[in-house]
Amino acid sequence: MRTIQVIGIGTGNPEHLTIQGIRALNATDVVFALDKGEAKAGLNAVRRTICQLYAERPGCRFVEAPDPERDRRPTDYSAAVDDWHAARAALYEDMIATHLGEDQTGAFLVWGDPALYDSTLRILERVSARGRVAFTVSVVPGITSVQALAASHRIPLHRIGEPVQITTGRRLRDEGGAVTGATVVMLDGDPTFDGLDPDLVIYWGAYLGTPDELLSTGRIGDVAESIHVMRAEARERHGWIMDIYLLMPRGRQSRRA
Amino acid sequence: MRTIQVIGIGTGNPEHLTIQGIRALNATDVVFALDKGEAKAGLNAVRRTICQLYAERPGCRFVEAPDPERDRRPTDYSAAVDDWHAARAALYEDMIATHLGEDQTGAFLVWGDPALYDSTLRILERVSARGRVAFTVSVVPGITSVQALAASHRIPLHRIGEPVQITTGRRLRDEGGAVTGATVVMLDGDPTFDGLDPDLVIYWGAYLGTPDELLSTGRIGDVAESIHVMRAEARERHGWIMDIYLLMPRGRQSRRA
Repeated sequence: MRTIQVIGIGTGNPEHLTIQGIRALNATDVVFALDKGEAKAGLNAVRRTICQLYAERPGCRFVEAPDPERDRRPTDYSAAVDDWHAARAALYEDMIATHLGEDQTGAFLVWGDPALYDSTLRILERVSARGRVAFTVSVVPGITSVQALAASHRIPLHRIGEPVQITTGRRLRDEGGAVTGATVVMLDGDPTFDGLDPDLVIYWGAYLGTPDELLSTGRIGDVAESIHVMRAEARERHGWIMDIYLLMPRGRQSRRA
Repeated sequence: MRTIQVIGIGTGNPEHLTIQGIRALNATDVVFALDKGEAKAGLNAVRRTICQLYAERPGCRFVEAPDPERDRRPTDYSAAVDDWHAARAALYEDMIATHLGEDQTGAFLVWGDPALYDSTLRILERVSARGRVAFTVSVVPGITSVQALAASHRIPLHRIGEPVQITTGRRLRDEGGAVTGATVVMLDGDPTFDGLDPDLVIYWGAYLGTPDELLSTGRIGDVAESIHVMRAEARERHGWIMDIYLLMPRGRQSRRA
């Protein structure tokens, strides 16, 4: 039976890889990756670097296929995601059937952690349901940008005993932008934090864990504009940007702590 | 100037350690730990194992001090946490001043990740504010039990594009136990999930990532009782338990995915 390992690799710092991740990599015959075009070639370069650094097994192959087109501004978001997942499932099935022997082990190297805003597990479930290739799945957790953000700012994600919400830019906008507690916002390609309460404190970071890391923190009213400028410059320079931010209401710390 | 590294070590599987964590460990002169009594001796045993496995530097010392008493059932929760943080701050200050030379590097090995329900960063900030010992802080992210739970169940933490809430058992109870979206519950020493909507799906795990790992999933109405039995038996056997669960409302997946 084939095995597919879904390995979280962290946020671009090859040293985010865990010992468990390295062990999984060294049990891998074929690493599967999607080619997302020139602008995002840097992401697969990190995957290749990780393989070069840590895969001690000779002959581990890197199989890359072009990522299916995706409608980035759909009128029906869930239908668009569904179509795109279906296209990826067909592609993954084909990659696995073509490149992975019956008793071999494949791997997907996932940015961050496979459990957080990544589609690999859902798509593999679809491949499984299609019934053409059989495999077992194992998951190796990885450092997320949520954790890298907090580490770089040297802060906890929440106040003492309080919850933290992890959400997306889309969802924050759809819900009117009300932020009542610690809120981490991911996947906000067109950030709208400057439309939020200017008294919220933002902890922002991009390219976290890499030499290109950018950080900024302060009252939204004070720092939103400079973050937009940094973002635009960095995106221009790199061809892509991955950023994330934590929003924290001010002055809600318990009276004594 | 002294440096204090706060290193996330994952959830008890020494292979959760990242390369960055190992590098930090190898730059460490003194590892600080709290002795939480016999029942929790296993936790420091994991820390010692990690040092033995990965610290290549000879002479890295392990300094252990008894953890200050903590009121586990306080009438005023935030005041009790505050008192306990103050006692720990005095202790950390003393450990650092006594055992760490002016140009040396100390480390705290934190279960999970320093940003999530861990007090080390807050306490070090207090030590700093006391002004007796000066140091810089660096943070190394680690795999949390949230990620280990999802990895072991091989699931994403949320539905497509939806948020995930991370909270505590205490908070869930205080807020009446309403669960409207994906909710991870931590620090629930006296779990009350059987009082929740029996149609919620629970993904439960204990001792995640270790050989003692326990997992269970299903409708709360179907599995709550057996989880309680497993919990009680395991706690009896180990002297302690660390568990966590994800709650997911049923049937709220988007129509096509």
